[in-house]
Amino acid sequence: MQRRRLRLGMVGGGQGAFIGAVHRIAARLDDRFELVAGALSSDPERARASAVEAGIARSYVDWREMARAEAARDDGIDAVAIVTPNHLHAPVATAFLEAGIHVICDKPLAVSLAEGEALAKLAQSTGRLFALTHTYSGYPLVRHARELVEGGELGEIRVVQVEYAQDWLAEPLETGGANKQAGWRTDPALAGPAGCLGDIGTHAYQLAAFVTGMMPRALSAELHTFVPGRRIDDHVQAMLCYANGARGMLWASQVASGAENALRLRVYGTKAGLAFDQEEPNALWFTPLGGAAERLTRARVKSPVAAHATRVPAGHPEGYLEAFAQLYKDAALQIDALNEGRAPPAESLLLTTVDDGVDGLRFIDAVLKSSAADGRWVEIEGA
Amino acid sequence: MQRRRLRLGMVGGGQGAFIGAVHRIAARLDDRFELVAGALSSDPERARASAVEAGIARSYVDWREMARAEAARDDGIDAVAIVTPNHLHAPVATAFLEAGIHVICDKPLAVSLAEGEALAKLAQSTGRLFALTHTYSGYPLVRHARELVEGGELGEIRVVQVEYAQDWLAEPLETGGANKQAGWRTDPALAGPAGCLGDIGTHAYQLAAFVTGMMPRALSAELHTFVPGRRIDDHVQAMLCYANGARGMLWASQVASGAENALRLRVYGTKAGLAFDQEEPNALWFTPLGGAAERLTRARVKSPVAAHATRVPAGHPEGYLEAFAQLYKDAALQIDALNEGRAPPAESLLLTTVDDGVDGLRFIDAVLKSSAADGRWVEIEGA
Amino acid sequence: MQRRRLRLGMVGGGQGAFIGAVHRIAARLDDRFELVAGALSSDPERARASAVEAGIARSYVDWREMARAEAARDDGIDAVAIVTPNHLHAPVATAFLEAGIHVICDKPLAVSLAEGEALAKLAQSTGRLFALTHTYSGYPLVRHARELVEGGELGEIRVVQVEYAQDWLAEPLETGGANKQAGWRTDPALAGPAGCLGDIGTHAYQLAAFVTGMMPRALSAELHTFVPGRRIDDHVQAMLCYANGARGMLWASQVASGAENALRLRVYGTKAGLAFDQEEPNALWFTPLGGAAERLTRARVKSPVAAHATRVPAGHPEGYLEAFAQLYKDAALQIDALNEGRAPPAESLLLTTVDDGVDGLRFIDAVLKSSAADGRWVEIEGA
Amino acid sequence: MQRRRLRLGMVGGGQGAFIGAVHRIAARLDDRFELVAGALSSDPERARASAVEAGIARSYVDWREMARAEAARDDGIDAVAIVTPNHLHAPVATAFLEAGIHVICDKPLAVSLAEGEALAKLAQSTGRLFALTHTYSGYPLVRHARELVEGGELGEIRVVQVEYAQDWLAEPLETGGANKQAGWRTDPALAGPAGCLGDIGTHAYQLAAFVTGMMPRALSAELHTFVPGRRIDDHVQAMLCYANGARGMLWASQVASGAENALRLRVYGTKAGLAFDQEEPNALWFTPLGGAAERLTRARVKSPVAAHATRVPAGHPEGYLEAFAQLYKDAALQIDALNEGRAPPAESLLLTTVDDGVDGLRFIDAVLKSSAADGRWVEIEGA
Repeated sequence: MQRRRLRLGMVGGGQGAFIGAVHRIAARLDDRFELVAGALSSDPERARASAVEAGIARSYVDWREMARAEAARDDGIDAVAIVTPNHLHAPVATAFLEAGIHVICDKPLAVSLAEGEALAKLAQSTGRLFALTHTYSGYPLVRHARELVEGGELGEIRVVQVEYAQDWLAEPLETGGANKQAGWRTDPALAGPAGCLGDIGTHAYQLAAFVTGMMPRALSAELHTFVPGRRIDDHVQAMLCYANGARGMLWASQVASGAENALRLRVYGTKAGLAFDQEEPNALWFTPLGGAAERLTRARVKSPVAAHATRVPAGHPEGYLEAFAQLYKDAALQIDALNEGRAPPAESLLLTTVDDGVDGLRFIDAVLKSSAADGRWVEIEGA
Repeated sequence: MQRRRLRLGMVGGGQGAFIGAVHRIAARLDDRFELVAGALSSDPERARASAVEAGIARSYVDWREMARAEAARDDGIDAVAIVTPNHLHAPVATAFLEAGIHVICDKPLAVSLAEGEALAKLAQSTGRLFALTHTYSGYPLVRHARELVEGGELGEIRVVQVEYAQDWLAEPLETGGANKQAGWRTDPALAGPAGCLGDIGTHAYQLAAFVTGMMPRALSAELHTFVPGRRIDDHVQAMLCYANGARGMLWASQVASGAENALRLRVYGTKAGLAFDQEEPNALWFTPLGGAAERLTRARVKSPVAAHATRVPAGHPEGYLEAFAQLYKDAALQIDALNEGRAPPAESLLLTTVDDGVDGLRFIDAVLKSSAADGRWVEIEGA
Repeated sequence: MQRRRLRLGMVGGGQGAFIGAVHRIAARLDDRFELVAGALSSDPERARASAVEAGIARSYVDWREMARAEAARDDGIDAVAIVTPNHLHAPVATAFLEAGIHVICDKPLAVSLAEGEALAKLAQSTGRLFALTHTYSGYPLVRHARELVEGGELGEIRVVQVEYAQDWLAEPLETGGANKQAGWRTDPALAGPAGCLGDIGTHAYQLAAFVTGMMPRALSAELHTFVPGRRIDDHVQAMLCYANGARGMLWASQVASGAENALRLRVYGTKAGLAFDQEEPNALWFTPLGGAAERLTRARVKSPVAAHATRVPAGHPEGYLEAFAQLYKDAALQIDALNEGRAPPAESLLLTTVDDGVDGLRFIDAVLKSSAADGRWVEIEGA
Repeated sequence: MQRRRLRLGMVGGGQGAFIGAVHRIAARLDDRFELVAGALSSDPERARASAVEAGIARSYVDWREMARAEAARDDGIDAVAIVTPNHLHAPVATAFLEAGIHVICDKPLAVSLAEGEALAKLAQSTGRLFALTHTYSGYPLVRHARELVEGGELGEIRVVQVEYAQDWLAEPLETGGANKQAGWRTDPALAGPAGCLGDIGTHAYQLAAFVTGMMPRALSAELHTFVPGRRIDDHVQAMLCYANGARGMLWASQVASGAENALRLRVYGTKAGLAFDQEEPNALWFTPLGGAAERLTRARVKSPVAAHATRVPAGHPEGYLEAFAQLYKDAALQIDALNEGRAPPAESLLLTTVDDGVDGLRFIDAVLKSSAADGRWVEIEGA
């Protein structure tokens, strides 16, 4: 039987936004959601125009009002996608959770660890789904990589190298106001205290944690701002130390001239190494110690977790939008189960959650502390 | 103002089909279509179950009946997607065109040149859109490659090398009946007289033609069947000669062990060369004679045609589904215009058409003739 | 015990030549030869100056005189390297063979099949070594590829794709006389009747034959000259048919803008496929049907034939000169054995010979015949 | 006129050694040296056998004796190549410098900074050449990269990422004594206090310094030993801070499963970024901010420094041995000049020197200090 499409609302993502449009495509791609309500902008005119353009029937200006009104409707939204600047993630999520509505929230979870922890607690108490859209964990080969590690194919993990390089902020795009994206992402009032760190450093951190199943025990880090006049970091470097003795490095930069969206992870264990490059997501490299490097592809790995996250056959490249859609697909599978009082299906459980968001905030917190203390090693809470 | 989503019907694409599901995602991705009707299978039970699974409201068993019924409804479909085995493309398309419904048809256009030419004539006379889904021309960098050639950046074209290698038919998958795809694609009654040639050789041919803007004047070709018992070719090789003196080679194989979906084009002119690999569609290589090879990406080319075919920023990989969606997006732009009596917008005009389909059939026809005549050079009609 | 370095002479390779200098480095690299005599140019002054520059003690102007004189000396040369334009290969080789001196000759063997066959006969009758320097068969991973095929790792060979693209003759460099290389290579009186075909087409052919162990039974080919005024082909395309039913294509071009020295081979069998790219010779790709692509490297293949052709450990790239040196090393091993009346060591036997040269001439001959007959399929003699 | 080949001696490099054989090939490749004397082993029998095998006329057991005897001969060696374990570099170099003989020494320069500084002072006072064989600075494209930076093509340098990963010590190869290489390189008495750090970390450091022309002002580092029982570090990670505000990271590991010899450098400036991978040394990537990535090759860069370090045309790959040979070639050019009282030719001046060696020891010293102080930032002396 055809399942009912879930009704989705959206907060943020008005005209000029990037990630809102991505969420809308991702929600649509696997045909599990229909977008029916939105508070796309706090500016009434822009909210309305954005809603029309996005084909959204019920347009709100105030997201508090939207939470109330949707909760009150019989055909109210099942879930809300939160795609605002970072400072609103927690307040908006709180309002919708309290209204009994499932939440799909962009990262980072919040602008402080305390705020994030409160949100996690609330999410747990409400029993609503809280999905955090760490896009890169939606890639089939990232999920397969995680399985390889978990299955012991790499042996004991020794070294983790993760990096995320971009160049789009190599110049002061935020001045002048023309670039909305650059504007809020470099404004501490909207982005929180972490710039590059919160925007892409957390993705790097999460990717490494997702694949290895390990959080670093401690880190030594340095934040830096290269572009004169910028009010927030645009570069972060960190050394990592894990509980099992593994070592690692994390680098994220938004001033790396020539880099587009170069998120790359390498993990080395006693038995093998692996490498993944987000810009070439249709391959995963796996090299056993002493053996030949293998270029694994979705079709060749014969992995159920990869198959679950795939739509097309071997050699038909998938990309960023499909990875993002996978998060929505998994969210839908879980929401359906929650709505029906079932346990969520096993294949949906790689979806990143509010707890992953708290981990990301702990990482941000530790980097901020270490950097402020001249790179002193700082323990990561809860790891 | 929000435009109305176009109402789409589908013929073929029931459970177990591959390309039907791809069309459905592609139609949905840019939110221009809603799928409302379908004759997904000629088996009544399978038709019904497939429609439910796909969330299609109006399910038909007989596509002739569907054409009639939809044409009669006020809220009947604007367009039909034809995703049947090849032998039905022309009859189904004819029925819907005659019912005044726009057609989006999978390739190859038909199973004979005569059939295809009749269809082209009909399409023209009805004034309905006839889009042929040559997926690979939906990639932004393929479109940019075409622009580079058209703009003279390569100089006079001298050499065209195109190939399409797969390995999924390296063994006799068609025996036993378990593999529906392999079954019809190797059955001349359903696929037509061209196997590998029609299935992927035409894609290779079309990609070369699309980018270079040139049809070969003549070819010398050899079809071959490697897998014992197979009733249709699984390998084609051809030498090409163009009117301007250019030379070329085309190779397509479905028995190339290790190849997934390796469609690759290289074009060399007097001033520069370019290369595109469908499995890595986020890069286009351009090398001026005597200069360094440049790895062009969507964001860096600053090309309006590439921008029109793109949804996400630099470094966020797009793939096969996005390329396919682009054809639907362009089709929607043209259908909107046709419905409103406007000229279609310029940016939509790279959509492949029924005429491209006729060109593909002329290529197939010439290959069949040359191969039957021991590789004699055969002129390509109309080129 | 330290073996005596073999005494080497050289004919051709004076100032301005390319391949002579390469032979000198190659001969030196593994310390098996010392270059003691030469007729580097037919111009007395240039011969003398070139010899001084190359550090050669005994300089001749006339190679016939050199053959006589060296044969008469107690410390005369053991072997001669022939690096002249093509038309002199056979006469010079004949003179040295008749003088009892081993020959290491650049390819192609001769400018006609008849000339080559006579030379092969002579070489056999004299019992002297006749090594033909098909450089690319000196790469360790090419040799390993051959072993993979021979060992049945690919199953029955079905498809051979080989190509050799360059762009250095995309413009009429031969005019004006400044470019000595371009001059003789496009002059039929010096290069023979085959231009691109003899210069690089034979390398492509030989590489395919070396790795697969198969000669095509027949071919259909077309030569073409793109550059106006050029007196010889600068482009060749051919379809190949093998005795076991395998099919193949060969393409060689010297006008492929952007290509440097792009010799590439792909072989597909019933069980696996492999790929080698001369420009990245430190990797060999091997993909079992249904399995992951493996990037084989010298160190990882644990192959004695690869180890024999290697000097440095894993990850220390080797290149063209090392491949070339390997031919000299194998030649030295065989000459030592011949000089001592022993059978040549097994590991030296992959050295390409006069018979390989005859095969190359048969290929050239067949291409010339097919091209002259509008691409008619022509049987390859002796295959 | 033909120049005289320089007479070369060698200390170390007996049977079973790796780098000695590499030096011998490198010295021979460009025909500037002949190896005439050696103290290849301190074991008399092994010294003799190794010398015979290497074709060395004058074999010594004691390098002190060798320095004395060669200095006393009219035809004594011009230069000595020092290829012993690290602890002997300084004593041997001292002996030969004091005997007035030019020195070509493997890296690291010495086993302590004090030792290295004394050596640098001595070298300067004697006026003899002291070349340190930092192989990777011999690659033509590394030299071109340096020129790009120096010429301002990257703008102000902001970020330096350098890494050197191997896996050959992922297991305790040093136990049992069978692996001579692993034995001395993990024995602090022979290798000095730095294991992976001295063996490959210094190469990474030097490559970054060579290309950027900058030493870090300070670093924060952590050494680690992964393999149980190992007496020396097999892993190093460091964060770097430069005087101009640039940041960087350095990682070297000998336990990175799957890595062969993966030395990679990336440099990002305000105007462009570049990337070099030692395992693919025939390409250098250069990407202007906002432009397309360019794959630069030797032939295409038209750079005199690259041309000086090249032997073969475009597309004919060169590798590790050619890079090494370049150091010998430059050394020969400088020794010829010194011997003749001329200034060394400009094109030879990229040869790495004793001062580069001292810089490397300062880096080692700072890493040892920082690592011992829990990663405290340590200023690098002299930078």
